[in-house]
Amino acid sequence: MSKQKFYLGIDIGGTKLAFAIADANGRLLHKLRRPTQAHLGSDTVVKNILDSTAELIKQANLSPSQIVCIGVSCPGPVDCNTGEIHNPPNLPDWGSVPLKKILEEQFRIPAKFENDANAAALAEFLFGAGAGRKNLVYLTMSTGIGGGIIVDGRLYRGAHGSAGELGHQILLPDGPLCGCGRRGCLEALCSGTALAKIMKAKVPNHPDSIMLGLVGGKIEKLDAHILLQAARDDDKLALSILRKAGYYLGWGLANLTNILDPEIFILGTLAIHAGDLLLAPAKDALSKYIFNRKIPLPALVPAKLGEEIGEYGAIAAAIEQTDCI
Amino acid sequence: MSKQKFYLGIDIGGTKLAFAIADANGRLLHKLRRPTQAHLGSDTVVKNILDSTAELIKQANLSPSQIVCIGVSCPGPVDCNTGEIHNPPNLPDWGSVPLKKILEEQFRIPAKFENDANAAALAEFLFGAGAGRKNLVYLTMSTGIGGGIIVDGRLYRGAHGSAGELGHQILLPDGPLCGCGRRGCLEALCSGTALAKIMKAKVPNHPDSIMLGLVGGKIEKLDAHILLQAARDDDKLALSILRKAGYYLGWGLANLTNILDPEIFILGTLAIHAGDLLLAPAKDALSKYIFNRKIPLPALVPAKLGEEIGEYGAIAAAIEQTDCI
Repeated sequence: MSKQKFYLGIDIGGTKLAFAIADANGRLLHKLRRPTQAHLGSDTVVKNILDSTAELIKQANLSPSQIVCIGVSCPGPVDCNTGEIHNPPNLPDWGSVPLKKILEEQFRIPAKFENDANAAALAEFLFGAGAGRKNLVYLTMSTGIGGGIIVDGRLYRGAHGSAGELGHQILLPDGPLCGCGRRGCLEALCSGTALAKIMKAKVPNHPDSIMLGLVGGKIEKLDAHILLQAARDDDKLALSILRKAGYYLGWGLANLTNILDPEIFILGTLAIHAGDLLLAPAKDALSKYIFNRKIPLPALVPAKLGEEIGEYGAIAAAIEQTDCI
Repeated sequence: MSKQKFYLGIDIGGTKLAFAIADANGRLLHKLRRPTQAHLGSDTVVKNILDSTAELIKQANLSPSQIVCIGVSCPGPVDCNTGEIHNPPNLPDWGSVPLKKILEEQFRIPAKFENDANAAALAEFLFGAGAGRKNLVYLTMSTGIGGGIIVDGRLYRGAHGSAGELGHQILLPDGPLCGCGRRGCLEALCSGTALAKIMKAKVPNHPDSIMLGLVGGKIEKLDAHILLQAARDDDKLALSILRKAGYYLGWGLANLTNILDPEIFILGTLAIHAGDLLLAPAKDALSKYIFNRKIPLPALVPAKLGEEIGEYGAIAAAIEQTDCI
């Protein structure tokens, strides 16, 4: 056992911290989750991270020297050299915590940082829906839209670590306001948050829609789950909202194809739940707007790693950055 | 001299064939140009290519064994494995010519093929405005808009050799018709051809513009040169057309920045001639639509290799693909 290589992954989220120890094939052997309690401030969260990490190593019956690398997946932007996370939206008053140094001094194990979207892209590439591929684009699709680009078998970070902001391709500069302050970004047109906003604006004018009934008249409860439920019941308004969102998604993916020529797109959360309600119109737009019709249309593939994508992402960051695959 | 490495470049264009022999630093030591005479058919053009190549080698006083590699830059899409060029727009009835095999059998030198936009990107990266950079995006801007992407110091070709179709990022799906059959591609909004079309549509309704006078009333003679000449004379219509084209260019570059995070954009032909008439509004849109405001705004840099970009591109294709740099 002592000759086997182990990796430790830490996924820092706004609501939960997730820890895992895995082998070089990305098998999660030991796991631990704790609430982040972000409101208690970064000192407490960091202590929680250190304690939980130590606890997991103990639980796995390993000595730190058996762990090749600690991978940390965290909300971006993150400085991969220092582990400093810049103004993470779900970690208020995080400040400038040199988390890399703190972890390395405590455990004497090298620590590698990656923003969560890039880490998830790496995980799907190494262990998930992209295994065996060399060029792919991953899009998270939940409250926001993030992404990661794998180029010739490696994560592409760009000149300043800022590549892959795929939710912020602007399609309609005069369109709906995006969380980033600009208008008409892909994220403002087809993320879960965008869909909820569109529903809240449209539902009051469509008394024939069943959606308001599904939330007992409480308009603030309208969200993507309700949208999908109504669409499966053939609700016309729900179907038309999804058709339009799918069109924007397909347009954005066509532009990405004309730029990057990936083998596949791996799509997370919303795309998985919505299936063809979103993906059929997306494929229509993709095939209409793609430039080179002699290459195969890139497949739209659902992400595979599900609820544990955070843990897998952190492990993938550790493995990729130590070049052990 | 016999220990020095030489490369031979062949640039196949619709109107001219350009040949060059260079050293490993990309210095063009011997050059030759011939008209393509595409109308005579591919057999004649191929014979012309073989004869001119032999002539240049002789002129350089080299034996073929002193040449490491032949690089060929040609209109895309090209099959880099066979040298077959698929339906080149300016080489009618080209058919499926196995040019790689023909060259290799004739000269006993390996031949490497690259489409002209990728080859030009490689050339600017190795010898031109991108020397010393690792991540850059190159955009040709003349009759059409083509491009090439350098990622971590290597040309990125994509899964099927079709990456970098940067002129076909669609911004306005209901906008002006593009040569590719779709609407509102970047190429349909700010290439030289697009500008000429816009001028022809707008000039008749603007009797105050000097442009029609500059072409002696012959509307079909309106082109980008006239546009720039009028703009430098403060012609309001000309300035507004360039401002709008620059806005679209900047929007497209902002999307590319959010996706690719390059250090610089290298822009060819039209951007060089127009300077700030086009680039100032482009920079405005770029800085407005960029997502991560903490990274430096990528610089818009004019291409450096000028009229000999074809020769440099062919040499760069030879050098890059033999991994000699």
